Amino acid sequence: MTFTDSLAAAWTRHDSLLCVGLDPDPAKFPAHLKGRGDAILEFCKSIADATADLVCAFKPQIAYFAAHRAEAQLEALIKHIHEKHPGIPVILDAKRGDIGATAEQYAREAFERYGADALTVNPYMGFDSVEPYLAWKERGVIVLCRTSNAGGSDLQFLETGGRKLYQHVAELVATKWNAGGQCALVVGATFPAELAEVRRLVGDMPLLVPGIGAQGGDIEATVKSGRTAAGSGLMINSSRAILYAGKGEDYAEKARQAAIETRDAINRYRK
Amino acid sequence: MTFTDSLAAAWTRHDSLLCVGLDPDPAKFPAHLKGRGDAILEFCKSIADATADLVCAFKPQIAYFAAHRAEAQLEALIKHIHEKHPGIPVILDAKRGDIGATAEQYAREAFERYGADALTVNPYMGFDSVEPYLAWKERGVIVLCRTSNAGGSDLQFLETGGRKLYQHVAELVATKWNAGGQCALVVGATFPAELAEVRRLVGDMPLLVPGIGAQGGDIEATVKSGRTAAGSGLMINSSRAILYAGKGEDYAEKARQAAIETRDAINRYRK
Repeated sequence: MTFTDSLAAAWTRHDSLLCVGLDPDPAKFPAHLKGRGDAILEFCKSIADATADLVCAFKPQIAYFAAHRAEAQLEALIKHIHEKHPGIPVILDAKRGDIGATAEQYAREAFERYGADALTVNPYMGFDSVEPYLAWKERGVIVLCRTSNAGGSDLQFLETGGRKLYQHVAELVATKWNAGGQCALVVGATFPAELAEVRRLVGDMPLLVPGIGAQGGDIEATVKSGRTAAGSGLMINSSRAILYAGKGEDYAEKARQAAIETRDAINRYRK
Repeated sequence: MTFTDSLAAAWTRHDSLLCVGLDPDPAKFPAHLKGRGDAILEFCKSIADATADLVCAFKPQIAYFAAHRAEAQLEALIKHIHEKHPGIPVILDAKRGDIGATAEQYAREAFERYGADALTVNPYMGFDSVEPYLAWKERGVIVLCRTSNAGGSDLQFLETGGRKLYQHVAELVATKWNAGGQCALVVGATFPAELAEVRRLVGDMPLLVPGIGAQGGDIEATVKSGRTAAGSGLMINSSRAILYAGKGEDYAEKARQAAIETRDAINRYRK
């Protein structure tokens, strides 16, 4: 099944637009996990198992693994999610961007080695830097458009040809790069007006929306701005607010409670 | 010593603007290395040892290691270069770009785990996505500006405020992001006129120039367009044309010959 189909099925099956971001920071782990060689894997597996029926996708952020020499734990985590929770797509958040020959290597890393269902990519180097990922027809390619950080405006808000750069990227992806129906866009929750503008430009294309919770984005404004006519179309990501909802041995149960609350808060504004 | 100082010292000591890109592709390795578990490390070490006195920097591309689960070999390679060829800066080519908290993890990966002297980064997410790397005061931060691939024009050539996006990035880095003198820019050799324009905008800032050799950039035009008034300021990268100059057991010697020819061809046009 393609990423797009898996995502649509998970939206329906779990009645959820919540994506849980797996950004494991050992400094924030509960005390009983500290010092264990496989702490990153154990922490992330527990979170995934506790929230799998509440989400439409999981999104591990590769930097949190790579900084700790934990590539093997990332491989094992994605394998675990696929085996134990089949049908839930895993998005590898790596924001890749390089020339074609190098992009082919990154595609092998993401899709072959890690078995990710989708990958985040950066549009700055243009279409031929994204094309090698699209050659993997079953996988999703999620392009940065309007990011949730303050500095996002430095380039993305520049005017070009009567519109802003992020609008140009949204149109480029919707009208050209998405010929195979594999694309989605990253649009931050911290800018609801721009989220609404991107939704207007791209029709029903899925949008990955980081920035609620720790980054301050408002759930009501996010859902009302970003939803499709059918009240769907979003992967609303929460990482820290769910991962670190508890600090003790019951961290997974606390994470589940936080995920339920976030899923329900999102669902309140879908229709 | 800072990256900028190491680079300047290597330019002078080796009378070379050549940067050798370490993009190991096992499919192109000589037959006697194939099947060895440490083939990537052995291949890259041999190339580095054979060319170290001819270069101003080495630039391993992380995708070529990550696609083959060869992170440990990348660590060992950079350690080897630092120990055996002290003073030659190693640029980790990873083109990172993410929000601050994630960029802190990528900085740990590049600078602490791998011990790289500099890292390539993507400007699309703006200043706060680059700031965490700049907190490592001795390290260099090399920002994508005008890339060598055909699709580079998709965004970088858009007009904004009377100039093109890549010009805006060049000015932004030169006037704001480079307050600590840690920055350099990536400008492809395939566009000499734009290389000259960037040089005009950024003064003596170092420029990393990929795209000669396999990508078709012309050495004379590159050097004449990109050199500083003192005939320096460039890291002119060559990867495939040097790594795969030979196909047999003498591949390192063939790589050395190719590196000498490239260094000399560059030096012919510096003054």
